[in-house]
Amino acid sequence: MRILVTNDDGYRAPGLQVLADALATLGEVTVVAPERNRSGASNSLTLDRPLRAHRADNGYIYVDGTPTDCVHLAITGLLEREPDMVVSGINAGANLGDDVLYSGTVAAAMEGRFLGYPAVAVSLAAHDPQHFPTAARVARAIVERLLSDPLPPDTILNVNVPDLPMEAVAGIEVTRLGHRHRAEPVVRTTDPRGRPIYWIGPAGPEEDAGPGTDFHAVAAGRVALTPIHVDLTHHEALGRLRAWAEALRP
Amino acid sequence: MRILVTNDDGYRAPGLQVLADALATLGEVTVVAPERNRSGASNSLTLDRPLRAHRADNGYIYVDGTPTDCVHLAITGLLEREPDMVVSGINAGANLGDDVLYSGTVAAAMEGRFLGYPAVAVSLAAHDPQHFPTAARVARAIVERLLSDPLPPDTILNVNVPDLPMEAVAGIEVTRLGHRHRAEPVVRTTDPRGRPIYWIGPAGPEEDAGPGTDFHAVAAGRVALTPIHVDLTHHEALGRLRAWAEALRP
Amino acid sequence: MRILVTNDDGYRAPGLQVLADALATLGEVTVVAPERNRSGASNSLTLDRPLRAHRADNGYIYVDGTPTDCVHLAITGLLEREPDMVVSGINAGANLGDDVLYSGTVAAAMEGRFLGYPAVAVSLAAHDPQHFPTAARVARAIVERLLSDPLPPDTILNVNVPDLPMEAVAGIEVTRLGHRHRAEPVVRTTDPRGRPIYWIGPAGPEEDAGPGTDFHAVAAGRVALTPIHVDLTHHEALGRLRAWAEALRP
Amino acid sequence: MRILVTNDDGYRAPGLQVLADALATLGEVTVVAPERNRSGASNSLTLDRPLRAHRADNGYIYVDGTPTDCVHLAITGLLEREPDMVVSGINAGANLGDDVLYSGTVAAAMEGRFLGYPAVAVSLAAHDPQHFPTAARVARAIVERLLSDPLPPDTILNVNVPDLPMEAVAGIEVTRLGHRHRAEPVVRTTDPRGRPIYWIGPAGPEEDAGPGTDFHAVAAGRVALTPIHVDLTHHEALGRLRAWAEALRP
Repeated sequence: MRILVTNDDGYRAPGLQVLADALATLGEVTVVAPERNRSGASNSLTLDRPLRAHRADNGYIYVDGTPTDCVHLAITGLLEREPDMVVSGINAGANLGDDVLYSGTVAAAMEGRFLGYPAVAVSLAAHDPQHFPTAARVARAIVERLLSDPLPPDTILNVNVPDLPMEAVAGIEVTRLGHRHRAEPVVRTTDPRGRPIYWIGPAGPEEDAGPGTDFHAVAAGRVALTPIHVDLTHHEALGRLRAWAEALRP
Repeated sequence: MRILVTNDDGYRAPGLQVLADALATLGEVTVVAPERNRSGASNSLTLDRPLRAHRADNGYIYVDGTPTDCVHLAITGLLEREPDMVVSGINAGANLGDDVLYSGTVAAAMEGRFLGYPAVAVSLAAHDPQHFPTAARVARAIVERLLSDPLPPDTILNVNVPDLPMEAVAGIEVTRLGHRHRAEPVVRTTDPRGRPIYWIGPAGPEEDAGPGTDFHAVAAGRVALTPIHVDLTHHEALGRLRAWAEALRP
Repeated sequence: MRILVTNDDGYRAPGLQVLADALATLGEVTVVAPERNRSGASNSLTLDRPLRAHRADNGYIYVDGTPTDCVHLAITGLLEREPDMVVSGINAGANLGDDVLYSGTVAAAMEGRFLGYPAVAVSLAAHDPQHFPTAARVARAIVERLLSDPLPPDTILNVNVPDLPMEAVAGIEVTRLGHRHRAEPVVRTTDPRGRPIYWIGPAGPEEDAGPGTDFHAVAAGRVALTPIHVDLTHHEALGRLRAWAEALRP
Repeated sequence: MRILVTNDDGYRAPGLQVLADALATLGEVTVVAPERNRSGASNSLTLDRPLRAHRADNGYIYVDGTPTDCVHLAITGLLEREPDMVVSGINAGANLGDDVLYSGTVAAAMEGRFLGYPAVAVSLAAHDPQHFPTAARVARAIVERLLSDPLPPDTILNVNVPDLPMEAVAGIEVTRLGHRHRAEPVVRTTDPRGRPIYWIGPAGPEEDAGPGTDFHAVAAGRVALTPIHVDLTHHEALGRLRAWAEALRP
């Protein structure tokens, strides 16, 4: 069993090391992670320039690219032997609801969809998280369980762990992604030379955060375990769209 | 009716201008697009630095960020009046099957999910496409139809147009996304200083490209019209995952 | 006579076009300039990734690199025929005194040091300059004079033009570079997520700006013409350093 | 005595640590260095975005900017107490002759020109250098000597150390910078998608590398100690240029 561990906070992030260490006795762990923080990278792939991979003193491989680049390289030839599964994290911050669209942590797991086992993304749901060991224990339990009782290989698990000591965690809940309202307004200001600049505003308030959502589970102190898919087709809309499109005459 | 037009090829790309011009009589068109080519950017958002927006001679606004940044700024306060819908493209190249995950063109449309009308991503399916007017006519027909016969606002339409003169196009087909095999191996080489570099390899061969898929429709000379959703929850997997997770003991 | 025109404000900057047009009747003008604004790039060379060069609609070639990259490529094989001289500018802003160390405009001229004629860097000395035609006329007069009465090929001329109508310019003065005090303090603030960020502060006040300096000439409404060299050896210090180094025992 | 140590190879480079350790007993050493390799950055300053500074586990501060940014921040307010001098290195590779123009290692030292003591740039002259302790011992001896027998504060010392064990070093020579011929041709190739790319070619062959130059000293196994200045005025050319400019009539 070969486990590829990665993240989007960069190869020196504490959450990465805690995760790699926690999985070390379950299989052969290889770390391939971005050289620097690439939060918000989503599934972006670097196509316009080549990538470089280096090995750090601790054996981790770091790449001057995105989380998706790291997993892509690792499963298409960078490593001598192909990994069996990808575990991404432990992200320092939640990846809940719509935010998942922008997440490099989750994107890295999605890029592992071609491997023999489900991919797992693990996030610690706090702004400045403290309880990495809790998330590591959850991650380890999930991987162990996947080894003994497999899920379909193309499953992607998005795991958000409340930032609590293990004994204070109120269980595990299988959830769906919640939804947010639109983001807060852009923050318009000027640089010291008087020129206008714009910061992307904070994420919007929760809109769909009731029972059953990942927002709700984490707020209640439970681990939120959300199955993710990579098929963006809106299957339920196909019928209606077919009727609608009949009158289309370009 | 205010239409926000954007793309991922950069604000000087020919496909963008053809699209903006084609929609100009349907509403008030504003262009906010990346300063340079950001293909492969997916839904990445720039959170670690501020963005700058400038107006080009032709009135287009360009931003030193990703396609998602452009739409995000435009709908959260950069523009004096909020747009009603987003149309993204015309991309110089297909956005079919799994490739949609990496697409900045489609991501830009997804970021328009909060507006009053469906968002549309338009791509011209050829390596070095010639027939932008065909794609522009298709895009215009879709927007016109959306105005007279609306679809739910959170619909996202991924449109791939074969690179043919309009009269050679064999119709419009509502499709699902196809799937590819894993990508081709990484291209390992050295730079002129003898150091190893890695290029992301080409996309993998088609695996699920039969009737009903977007791959199939475009190959047959038809416009592929695929409804996309932004809810990544794998709803069908929830039941099974609940059973599986019961035995989970971190 | 083939003239390579470049800048550091990017290939779409108005000053570049004014300069290229002004020189067009003196020789065969080719423009190779950065894709986007690279002010402050100094002599930086891009060694860790390959560069891309594209031709814009107006015939200008733009490169996704620094001003130095542009000139370097242009004189080492990008162009079919090697240029005879480099003229860089018209920069929208002064390049005076110590600021020259950071200037991409001046660095581009320095990279032309291997060609058959002196290189020229032209800047318009105002924060938001208006009188590009004045600077263009000065640049043209300098190039014309260099053609009829050459200076040594390794000469680099740093030209700063006051932002005035030509008839208000009070002449041309050959100057030395002035000096500034240390820069103003770093501007410490936080991003919208509450994390500390630091902006480089404004340039320091003038320390050596008396008669004979470029600062002084421009302030008096004159064109400052400063000869620059690329030999950073502090020749005057060699003797003293030899004595000092005798006692050095590593 | 507070010594600011920096480099252009990034804060994790082995040469940086060897240097910081070697100077630790001579004063209070603070390290502020780039987050990643910024070789070739020259004196480039980051003016278009804010910078971020973080403290690594070993106490080093790393900045997401250039070597010049690091020193600039450190001497304009990032640090609680201003440093007295800058020592930059140990660069993994030579900085000789014209190459100094592009060097981030030397630029970092130049940015320390406003402090109370001379600035020192130290490079180990080999492609894949082995003998960092030799360079560290040389650096330490220079700093020690500067403390006991000061040179003028605006002196900048560019030190290139042969990659040899200390006992094999054939002495120290005060040198001038040599010169190179023009760089080798650009390396023109294509990316895996068939698009043309250009790599900057290798540095040109030595043109002026005879006795007295830094090239010559290092080739002979000696430490090359070159005084550098930051005044780019070509003072010797002023007289001739004044005569030449009299006939200038824009």
